[in-house]
Amino acid sequence: MRWVRFEDKDGASFGIVEGDDVVAVSGTPFGVYEKTGRKIPLSGATLLPPVMPPTIYCAGHNYRDHIVKSAKRKGIEAVIPDEPEFGYRAVNALIGHEADVVVPKDSARPIHYEPELVAVIGKKAKRVTKAEAKSCVFGYTIGNDISERAWQKSDRTNWRAKNMDTFKPMGPWIETEVDLDKTRTLVRVNGETVMDFQTYDVLFDVETCIASLTRYVTLYPGDVLWMGSEGEAINMKPGDVNEIEITGIGVLRNTFTWES
Amino acid sequence: MRWVRFEDKDGASFGIVEGDDVVAVSGTPFGVYEKTGRKIPLSGATLLPPVMPPTIYCAGHNYRDHIVKSAKRKGIEAVIPDEPEFGYRAVNALIGHEADVVVPKDSARPIHYEPELVAVIGKKAKRVTKAEAKSCVFGYTIGNDISERAWQKSDRTNWRAKNMDTFKPMGPWIETEVDLDKTRTLVRVNGETVMDFQTYDVLFDVETCIASLTRYVTLYPGDVLWMGSEGEAINMKPGDVNEIEITGIGVLRNTFTWES
Repeated sequence: MRWVRFEDKDGASFGIVEGDDVVAVSGTPFGVYEKTGRKIPLSGATLLPPVMPPTIYCAGHNYRDHIVKSAKRKGIEAVIPDEPEFGYRAVNALIGHEADVVVPKDSARPIHYEPELVAVIGKKAKRVTKAEAKSCVFGYTIGNDISERAWQKSDRTNWRAKNMDTFKPMGPWIETEVDLDKTRTLVRVNGETVMDFQTYDVLFDVETCIASLTRYVTLYPGDVLWMGSEGEAINMKPGDVNEIEITGIGVLRNTFTWES
Repeated sequence: MRWVRFEDKDGASFGIVEGDDVVAVSGTPFGVYEKTGRKIPLSGATLLPPVMPPTIYCAGHNYRDHIVKSAKRKGIEAVIPDEPEFGYRAVNALIGHEADVVVPKDSARPIHYEPELVAVIGKKAKRVTKAEAKSCVFGYTIGNDISERAWQKSDRTNWRAKNMDTFKPMGPWIETEVDLDKTRTLVRVNGETVMDFQTYDVLFDVETCIASLTRYVTLYPGDVLWMGSEGEAINMKPGDVNEIEITGIGVLRNTFTWES
């Protein structure tokens, strides 16, 4: 099942993709919901981030090659972690499929994409075991952890580097049926493939992350867990169209623009 | 005006403090609301965090003495910043006035309180000037940025050190009329005063923080801006009762317990 959030003249609503259409629902996918009579063509729908999460968790340092390459960029030694660690992203930065990324004009650049698998939490969870962890996952979507590398280096936190408005595209929808072991992540810039890797070749899988997290924190319905990024991006330029495809989920497409 | 969120058999609700009572309202303080006929004694109300924020911003390194003392603790040189920088805290960690802090049993300690003034944002704001910034503030509450210093040192992020469940007491209410230049912050442990400082002796005031933030991010109604902590705490023990008073706002009281 594919869940979207979309916006039209009647406001924002959750919806279910049925063929070429979106059927609007009342309520939320995490609780009680009901299909309404309202149906619009998917191609004409303005898609929003498929959920506005209470908390955005991200498993940093979860792909070997990304750790090695980002350590090299920073001029430090690469350390492969023994346990997952989690950072946060801020909801102001979320945008949906096809919305524009807007880079502030005082950015010193470079600007990089980071393609990520995103697990969407479906139920309240504290102290769950690895065996129970998957039952807390509602489905999966795609995230782009866009990063301004100059501010990532100069600032003490990532508030500007990773959390500026429009810097967190997420979507296009939540897919509830995904075989993670079969998915590949493909990144395209202006139609050219610039990354192609096995999505789930992670150091810490979803079960491990959820078990680790819920030892200390309660997860809530709608929370999202971004699973980290592989490799290293090319520098983005104004007008570049960035597509992240995770096979079995969909394609998240956003255009990079510069603030005028 | 004093705004609370409280919980009783009818669920969670916003309310307005009137004398010794809380009058329940429908709606939210940030939009349309209406007093209901329901009134309960304030002394009998279970107070929740006065708002569940979309985003919790914190101006780190905002008091000179705290910067000097925490640098000394970490064995690094103190750097007084030229501009504010912002971190994040997570909503799972919020608890209200009188709720217990629960320290995980594998904590290596020490556990410290950090008393903070909290500005509650009342309206959507992007690119506001310092002159306009105060008009975005709905009111003020009190936060306790409880910190586990061992994990703050060992972990790459503050996900365990500062964002574990129950580690962010906030309350008791939002006070809309505060003369910040007259307030003092008093911290008590088991009734004994252990800190007493001028609340607004900050490096970066609320106007400066909001102008800086909104250059890059949009603030939304209900977002909160924690203004940083002064000094250094004493180590907390099981059963310790921690009170943070900001004169003109109120007293936030929480008891520290250890997970059994």
